[in-house]
Amino acid sequence: MVSITKKELKEIKSLRTRKGRRASGRFAAEGVRLLEEAIRHDVRPELLLWSPALLAERGHQLVQQFRRRRVQVVELAARELNGISESVTSQGIMGVFDIPQSSFDELLRPEHRTVLLCDGISDPGNLGTLLRCALAFRFNPVLLTGKCADPYAPKVVRASVGAIFGVDLIRTAAADVAALVDRGKFRLIAADVNDRTGTVDFKDTRCNRLILAVGSEAEGLSESILKISDCRWRLEHERCVDSLNAAVAAAIMMQGIYHHTIGKRN
Amino acid sequence: MVSITKKELKEIKSLRTRKGRRASGRFAAEGVRLLEEAIRHDVRPELLLWSPALLAERGHQLVQQFRRRRVQVVELAARELNGISESVTSQGIMGVFDIPQSSFDELLRPEHRTVLLCDGISDPGNLGTLLRCALAFRFNPVLLTGKCADPYAPKVVRASVGAIFGVDLIRTAAADVAALVDRGKFRLIAADVNDRTGTVDFKDTRCNRLILAVGSEAEGLSESILKISDCRWRLEHERCVDSLNAAVAAAIMMQGIYHHTIGKRN
Repeated sequence: MVSITKKELKEIKSLRTRKGRRASGRFAAEGVRLLEEAIRHDVRPELLLWSPALLAERGHQLVQQFRRRRVQVVELAARELNGISESVTSQGIMGVFDIPQSSFDELLRPEHRTVLLCDGISDPGNLGTLLRCALAFRFNPVLLTGKCADPYAPKVVRASVGAIFGVDLIRTAAADVAALVDRGKFRLIAADVNDRTGTVDFKDTRCNRLILAVGSEAEGLSESILKISDCRWRLEHERCVDSLNAAVAAAIMMQGIYHHTIGKRN
Repeated sequence: MVSITKKELKEIKSLRTRKGRRASGRFAAEGVRLLEEAIRHDVRPELLLWSPALLAERGHQLVQQFRRRRVQVVELAARELNGISESVTSQGIMGVFDIPQSSFDELLRPEHRTVLLCDGISDPGNLGTLLRCALAFRFNPVLLTGKCADPYAPKVVRASVGAIFGVDLIRTAAADVAALVDRGKFRLIAADVNDRTGTVDFKDTRCNRLILAVGSEAEGLSESILKISDCRWRLEHERCVDSLNAAVAAAIMMQGIYHHTIGKRN
């Protein structure tokens, strides 16, 4: 049976923190549902930890699937797995994954026609929801600018419901995006969550390649992103509501673009 | 200066729990943003508690607005307000409101053309987001069936960002909704978050009066609601995602209906 040192367990526990993830270049995902998504997207963990007593039949089958994929599987006592788990009671299975490194040039690959830019989305739940919607509506890659939550933080991974394994993430700077937009490679649509001036005819979004940029609810998009945008898009709604939740507004816009452009291409 | 007894403070503290709210028939909303929404929707608290030391200038002005509306205002020491606040550090202002009692017959008023039905939405954040979107896209009233979270729970009130003051809430049973649908008063559209069979042409939703029913992510809609639905609507998205977040999916549908029907009526 494969075993694991206490030092290694301690390092895995540290993946709950940003500092730990940075030092180790890895992140953890817990629970049957998330790890099933890793299999669906063909992302192999570097290491799989599990505790048979904590897992139902569906989980045992999942462990077999990882074994068939030649993943290193380590069995732990419930107490040991609970000790490194993010929650008080572990879900019985945890994958440790390398943090993928996507280069900015990825973006230029011709299949990437609709891209999401998250600018300073600091709420982990919102960022996770945005990743899930991006995958659902074929926005890929997802660019991260400004003070975004760490996409590999446990709360984001959980809120993404496994979409973290399906989207390519690129941390970048507004200046790099500006260069692309200037060269006419992409059209940038700024989502105006906070009811400012300016609106966009829906048909305007039917261009060949576009970046939809969304900012945080509290701050909106940063000036450096707003000034490179080709247009601003604000969802129409009743005036008795100041704004929508940032993730909800962006989801509605992504679905609208998906429905009107991508859906029709198929 | 108006004062308050310890017994009354204890009762207000109990409004954090469902039991306390039920016993008292009241709920609490904290913070400047939520209380500004109460003023916007012309909902008067029975009592306003504040602590000057904890509040910035914007909050002091808000207290004046409530005073002008002849609301009973009680000043507390920071320690006292923190003691009854839902968070460790109070935001310095708290309103205590009567829980409104809306009757089912409200629903029949002719201005209610689009209605949201939340069936077993147990996540407080999701329920609050749904209320916010319902207000934004003119879905009113909001019907609650099955095991929904208590809409007056602090987490729901907060996630609604004050929409709790703008929508009419009616707790009801599937059988009552069924009677309405049977009599042809409303068309019921079942939101299929969980990728089952069946889809709806968007144009089908352009009927005169409709109820959009949404269930929880985990359970979907209950059979008692599904069997009275006129049609099922599932959002099209990439197959590599099983389902969307329930609140996000419902928000997209509400916006779609708003955009195609209500928006065009104005």
